[in-house]
Order: sequence, then C-alpha cells, then structure tokens
Amino acid sequence: MPHTDVITDISGHNDVADRPARGGAVKGTILVTGTGFDAGRLKLLQARGYDVRQPSPLLTEEQLTRELKDVVAYLHGGEEYATRAALESAKATLKVVAFLGVGYETFVDVAAADDLKIVVTSTPGAARDSVATFTVAQILNANLRIFQQFGNRYPDWDSADELPYELSARNVGIVGMGVIGSRIAEMLRGAFDANVAYYSRSRKKRLERTLGMGFMDLPDLAEWSDILVVMVPGNASTTSMISDGVLGRARPGTILINTARPSVVDPAALYASMKADRVRLAVFDGFYGKDSEAAARLLRDFGGRMLVTGHVASHTRQAMDRMLDQAVASIENLLSGNADRYAVGAADRIPEP
Amino acid sequence: MPHTDVITDISGHNDVADRPARGGAVKGTILVTGTGFDAGRLKLLQARGYDVRQPSPLLTEEQLTRELKDVVAYLHGGEEYATRAALESAKATLKVVAFLGVGYETFVDVAAADDLKIVVTSTPGAARDSVATFTVAQILNANLRIFQQFGNRYPDWDSADELPYELSARNVGIVGMGVIGSRIAEMLRGAFDANVAYYSRSRKKRLERTLGMGFMDLPDLAEWSDILVVMVPGNASTTSMISDGVLGRARPGTILINTARPSVVDPAALYASMKADRVRLAVFDGFYGKDSEAAARLLRDFGGRMLVTGHVASHTRQAMDRMLDQAVASIENLLSGNADRYAVGAADRIPEP
Repeated sequence: MPHTDVITDISGHNDVADRPARGGAVKGTILVTGTGFDAGRLKLLQARGYDVRQPSPLLTEEQLTRELKDVVAYLHGGEEYATRAALESAKATLKVVAFLGVGYETFVDVAAADDLKIVVTSTPGAARDSVATFTVAQILNANLRIFQQFGNRYPDWDSADELPYELSARNVGIVGMGVIGSRIAEMLRGAFDANVAYYSRSRKKRLERTLGMGFMDLPDLAEWSDILVVMVPGNASTTSMISDGVLGRARPGTILINTARPSVVDPAALYASMKADRVRLAVFDGFYGKDSEAAARLLRDFGGRMLVTGHVASHTRQAMDRMLDQAVASIENLLSGNADRYAVGAADRIPEP
Repeated sequence: MPHTDVITDISGHNDVADRPARGGAVKGTILVTGTGFDAGRLKLLQARGYDVRQPSPLLTEEQLTRELKDVVAYLHGGEEYATRAALESAKATLKVVAFLGVGYETFVDVAAADDLKIVVTSTPGAARDSVATFTVAQILNANLRIFQQFGNRYPDWDSADELPYELSARNVGIVGMGVIGSRIAEMLRGAFDANVAYYSRSRKKRLERTLGMGFMDLPDLAEWSDILVVMVPGNASTTSMISDGVLGRARPGTILINTARPSVVDPAALYASMKADRVRLAVFDGFYGKDSEAAARLLRDFGGRMLVTGHVASHTRQAMDRMLDQAVASIENLLSGNADRYAVGAADRIPEP
C-alpha cells in the first residue's frame, strides 16, 4: 500500500485487493528507485506475484526508511544513499538490495547490509560500453574544447597557441584498468591513436601488450598526462585517491576527466590545482553533494572550467535494459532462495569498474 | 607596404627598407589570411625573400581586392570568398592561390582563377584525422545529447523513452566516402560498433568488405539512418545535395551531422524536416551566411535543436601545421616555376574530402 501520494503503481491499478487475482497471494513488495528505465521490464516481478512500488526520485533518508517498510527487495536505481538506519528499519522483511550499476558502495552501506544479512547485488559489465563511450566523448569534448565553440559562425581563436591538439599528440593517463577502463583504453588506442598509459592496483601485462600502453605509478602518471582519466569504483579505499600528492604533480594545462564517483577526487586538491592552472579543465559526471563547501567554492571560482553532468554516463537505453534485467534476475534468484553470482559484500574484493 | 593599419608584419619589422638585407631583393609580397596558425612557419617564405602580409580576419571583397594589390601569392586560410573581381584585380602579379584545406571551391572562384592563369592549390589529407575526430565527437555529443546535460547534478529525464541509444544500436549513414568519410567509418565501426552504411558517387567495395558496411542510394540511406553524416566537398555539384527528396525520407527523430560545408544541405528542406521532426537535431560546423533568410529562420525557430560551431573541425595545431607547411611548399614550388602536385582547377575531378 502506498505510503505517500507520490508513489505510483506501474500496473495501473491502485486497488490492492485487485492484485492477488493476477498471481495468487502477493508475495511481498519490491521498492524500485530511480528514473529513466523501462518499467515494462519490471512486469516479470509482478507476474511472479510481487507488488512493485516506485516512489518519486531523490529520496531523503527519512523518505527511504518509510518506503522500505514491509519491502522484501529493494532495486536501487536512484541517487539516494541506503544508510544503516534505513536498512535496519527494514531488516524484518528486506532480503535483497539489487544495485543498478557497479559503484554500489557509494549508494549502499554494504557493511550494514552484511551485518543485517541483507544481500547486495550489482550489475557489473552491463554499462561498460555506455560509460566508456560517454567518457571518450567527454575526452574529445574537453580536448577539442567543442563546448566553447557552440553558437559561433567563425573560429574564435586568434593564435596558434589556442588551437587544440589532436588526440594522437596527447598523453592520456587512465587511473583504473577494470572492464570500463580497459574499454576506454581500447577506444583511445584503436580509433584515435592516443598515447595511453595507466595506473591500477594490479599490472595488466596482457593489455599492455595488446594495446601498446605503459604502466606508471599514480603521481608519475599525473605528471605524464595531458588528459588524466579517472575510472575506479567509489569506495573507502578510493576516496580522495586523486589527492594533492597526485594533482600537485600535474603539468600546467592538464585536463581531468572524472566519470567515476566525485569522491575519488579530493575537492580541496582540485581547487588548489585549478587555482595554479595545473588542472585547466575538470569534467565530472555527477558532482559533490550540495552541502559540500569545497564543491561550492569550485563552482563559484572555476565554474567556467568545469564540465559537470548529472551521473548519466551509464544511462543509455541498452545499458539500463541490461542492468534492469540483471537486477530483476538477481532479485528473483535470491527471493527464491537461490544463490546469485552478482552478490557482493563489504568483505568482497571489489572489481574495478 | 601595408595598405591598412590592421596589417601586421610577422617579422616584427615595419621598416620595408630593412628587409632586403636579410634575403636580397624582395621578390614579392605574399598575402596570408586567416587566424590560428603558427606564423613562425611562414618564415621560410621570408627567408626566400618574400614579404608576408597578414591582414585582420574576415575580409570583405573590397578589402580583399585592396590586400591583393601587387601580391604574387595568396595563402587562403580565412573565411573570405576570393571572387572573380578580386582575383582579376591582381592578375598582373598573382600566380598562386594556396588554399588551406580541401573545400577550396567554397572559398575561391576556381573557374575565374583558371581563366586568369592563376594556379589554385589545396592541402588534401592534412586535416583528415582532425575533421574525422571532430565529426565523431559531434556524433557522440548529439547521440548522447551530452550538451543538454551540462550543469546538472542529477539525470534530468523521467522516462525510458528519453534515454539515448548506444551507438551500437544506431544506424549511421555517411554521405561521401573520401579520405575523411572513410576515416569516420573506420572510427565508428572499430571503436563503437555502430551499424554503418554509406552513399558515394562511386562504390568502395574494398572498404565495404574491410569495414563491414553497405552501400545505399542517398534517399534510401536517409531513411535507414538514425544519424546521417554529410562529408562531401562543397561545390556546384553538391550544393543542396541534401534536399527535400533526401530529408523527406528521413524517419522521425533523425540526427543530421554536417561537418562539411553548409551549402550541401538545402536550408529550406532542413527547415521543413525539422518542423516535421524528421530531423530532430542538426549539427553544423560553419553555418549559412548572415544574410541568408533561410538560415535566420532555422536559428529562430529551431535554434535549440541546432549545434553550430564555427568551421573549426580542421583547426587542430597538428592539422594547421601540416596544412600550412603543405601550402608554403606549394607556393614555393609554383613561384619557382615548378609544377605542384596539389594544384587543382575547375576542370579537375574533385576528390571527396
């Protein structure tokens, strides 16, 4: 039963009594958050006898806690953070949090879920091409400064010093060489002949050979790069990984592309490096919270040198369909008492995206 | 000797009497138009005894006529059109018009040059990677609608219908399969796995095999394409080639990418197809003249669905350096009485860019 007037029932019925007729007894309620996906793909869950509840986007902790009441599974596709308190309130019924995407640690308190015996799943791989393509598009945008050219009829530069460089004359450093990072490297090498090097927790010698790219320590990579691309998962071990020690090594004019979680870049370090023009342009997909003072200062003082989008890199129809289908399958598996290959936990080794 | 106060002498000397000392008698004056290139690369011409004159950008016919007085060679890197009258006025001295780029017919009256025995040269190939990369960047921008996402902290769509498609789920039709068109096809197939088909004056069977793409007649291609990319030279035979007959076949929501000359797309046909939403978004690099009523109507009624940049696709530093070096070499060749492989004429078979 809806708890607020913003809740919609995608079946088109608001009469709870009407439901069991279509699938026997209601087995439980599944909370689905987020926007922009094909609700038709949730019908499978309804056909199996579950109620599906989709509240409006952008839940506060309090709203989430209310929405989680009596829920057996929670398909997390929104921008909210599932806190320990919210999960705790639902522990009597909640068995699964199926996260849409890979960076679940930014959005779910996985340690709390572990403690509460709530299984968390993610959808690795489903958004690989979408995120890699979006990232390459932003590399091209930033490198060619296309966004500054919109609305002109004639070129707006006067000297050769202002001309952008071809990607084949650029060093691109990639931080993180998981499935997305390696796809980015493949595109940059294969299509644009960029010079690529990378840093990663572990060496990827096969990729180094097949793609023709080198490995460097993170600060060395920052110094070498004309364009520094960040693609690691957002979690405790990567928070502020792009620090003063890293950005302090960047050469003047460096472009920073962060299509991973904003938390990976220390905002104070970014501020200092933008002030010193070591970072000339910073690209984010998703930004620090609205209550972050460091973020407010960045936008106030260097807003014209920041290209911020709203965490949309993975939001293609194909990626959303794949993620949603994968999450629905995980929910079904786990609610049916089966194991699921996409289950993750705080103790798990976290793959790079 | 300068004719207007905007003329600058890149040697840093304003004293004409000072010049012969550095290279013997002055052999003649070379007019260089346009912005954004490395003037240092013109020193070769000065070392050979030529004066180099660089007026300010955006010359009218009258200004150009004045600037061409007593000039032996004219390096055309600007946005001006070299008319018959302007060339005629300089016929006593002018031997070469070296055009920076490939689309010389949009900027030089080649038939007039032929009549006046003035050789026109171009710089084919020099900007291939730059134009192809810029075009692919705009395909990604338009397809993912990235420019609409700037400044957001959260995704701004509500339904799956609004989500962009991955390029691998898109049909991309390329009009023109010269050196640039084929490079675009290579990038789209190799890096992004798009479905690609093309139309060209002549079949390219080897490319069809190696890239895995089909050939279609132009109207069929327009109907098949989710994204229609135009990459043919701007000349009399391609003016308004993208006509009502072509755009009338486009399916609702088609994206048109024209990084060739604007004249290739009939503005009235574009207006009609944008009004009918057959073309949802139109991308131009360089736009119709400011006195074009059709262009003004397009911007007035559909400006929010047009991404216009100012003819910058070829303007990377590397491409400009290559073009400039090639044009300087052509000028030297021809002024020394030699033939030049980059000479073109009105009667020449014009390669596709």
